[in-house]
Amino acid sequence: MEIETKLQAMGLELPPPIKVPPDVKLPFSFVRIHDGFAYASGHGPQNTDGTVAGPFGKVGQDVTVVQGYESAKLVALSMLGSLKRELGDLDRIVAWTRVFGMVNCAPDFTKQPAVINGFSDLILELYGDEQGAHARSAVGMSSLPFNIPVEIEATVAIL
Amino acid sequence: MEIETKLQAMGLELPPPIKVPPDVKLPFSFVRIHDGFAYASGHGPQNTDGTVAGPFGKVGQDVTVVQGYESAKLVALSMLGSLKRELGDLDRIVAWTRVFGMVNCAPDFTKQPAVINGFSDLILELYGDEQGAHARSAVGMSSLPFNIPVEIEATVAIL
Amino acid sequence: MEIETKLQAMGLELPPPIKVPPDVKLPFSFVRIHDGFAYASGHGPQNTDGTVAGPFGKVGQDVTVVQGYESAKLVALSMLGSLKRELGDLDRIVAWTRVFGMVNCAPDFTKQPAVINGFSDLILELYGDEQGAHARSAVGMSSLPFNIPVEIEATVAIL
Repeated sequence: MEIETKLQAMGLELPPPIKVPPDVKLPFSFVRIHDGFAYASGHGPQNTDGTVAGPFGKVGQDVTVVQGYESAKLVALSMLGSLKRELGDLDRIVAWTRVFGMVNCAPDFTKQPAVINGFSDLILELYGDEQGAHARSAVGMSSLPFNIPVEIEATVAIL
Repeated sequence: MEIETKLQAMGLELPPPIKVPPDVKLPFSFVRIHDGFAYASGHGPQNTDGTVAGPFGKVGQDVTVVQGYESAKLVALSMLGSLKRELGDLDRIVAWTRVFGMVNCAPDFTKQPAVINGFSDLILELYGDEQGAHARSAVGMSSLPFNIPVEIEATVAIL
Repeated sequence: MEIETKLQAMGLELPPPIKVPPDVKLPFSFVRIHDGFAYASGHGPQNTDGTVAGPFGKVGQDVTVVQGYESAKLVALSMLGSLKRELGDLDRIVAWTRVFGMVNCAPDFTKQPAVINGFSDLILELYGDEQGAHARSAVGMSSLPFNIPVEIEATVAIL
């Protein structure tokens, strides 16, 4: 329970499963476990009540880079929430391997790395430089579901 | 041959290898097999004669969400066609793990999940809730090859 | 050292680690190794002095398809440079598995495959049709960091 103790010490809370409007069907697994790996679906930012968290819109246009960074941090908490529910204990994650960071942004936006750092910085703080190390892309999308500013998918190796 | 029997019972047909214009070179593997996994390249919708299937254009602009859903279903059949040719038998797929769903759409489109459900629903119907379960992202791209509305890549674990 | 001998024979040089402006923080691993795989982060084109290489902008608008192809080739060299530093010897790569090719382009651009072929052609020339074979997607992004025209991430199996 080391990771959760750290989260508590940082005053951070993992959100419950996502609440979406009743007409939205999401027929996939938020975390798919197979043979030593947990594949995390694309996650967005959540409020602590489970709803999708704003601010909404495109980074560099409707949302600032600083707000985008905070949004990416909420994405990390959303994904950790899903991983906790599926794995039981977040300490079972022995290595973060791949992080794919998607920023909803205008065609001339180029600071995707500064946004996705909100995710990477938290993962590295929680898991340290060895277990938390991850390959990453941080790229610009035309649009994202619910008009969220950031969506991230990842793969982790588990015990 | 259980999966193919199901496909036949549903009246669905797997397309032949994709036919592209002679000036288009695709020097990669539609399915790459390595060490218990099959990595499926980004696939688009195909007609039963192998050509790229329309409607073409951006979902939410040129193509409706319902048409996008049907397009995503054709992408599933295209990918299953490639997997069948490479694996011999689609029953060798023991677990779908990761599905990355890309929707060609306008900057204000937000219903990517409803589009990519055309893929997920078919995979779950064919493989069931355990083998067919998959982590997924459904996101908006600026544009896609051949102006197809949907492209999907995936990874499956195989026997 | 077979791969590096081939690179030398082709007159190609691997760039040093990327040099970015001092305000850009990239707190991730350019190559993450875990359990027989090396996960390469999204790489962009580099000059031989390590800086980010132009031309900059969107393919099909600011950058031609031929220039995009050359840019994708530089991305391959950038990624091989990172892999060499992490693995010691590029001959340790026994199989390219997944290549995800992202093209910074206008909403009406559809020749992403012709651009990403600059990466695939070099990898196949260096590693041959068996080891070099890879599943691939080539898709259009709204924008990319530093306004580079091409970014590619990949996974390789290693000895």
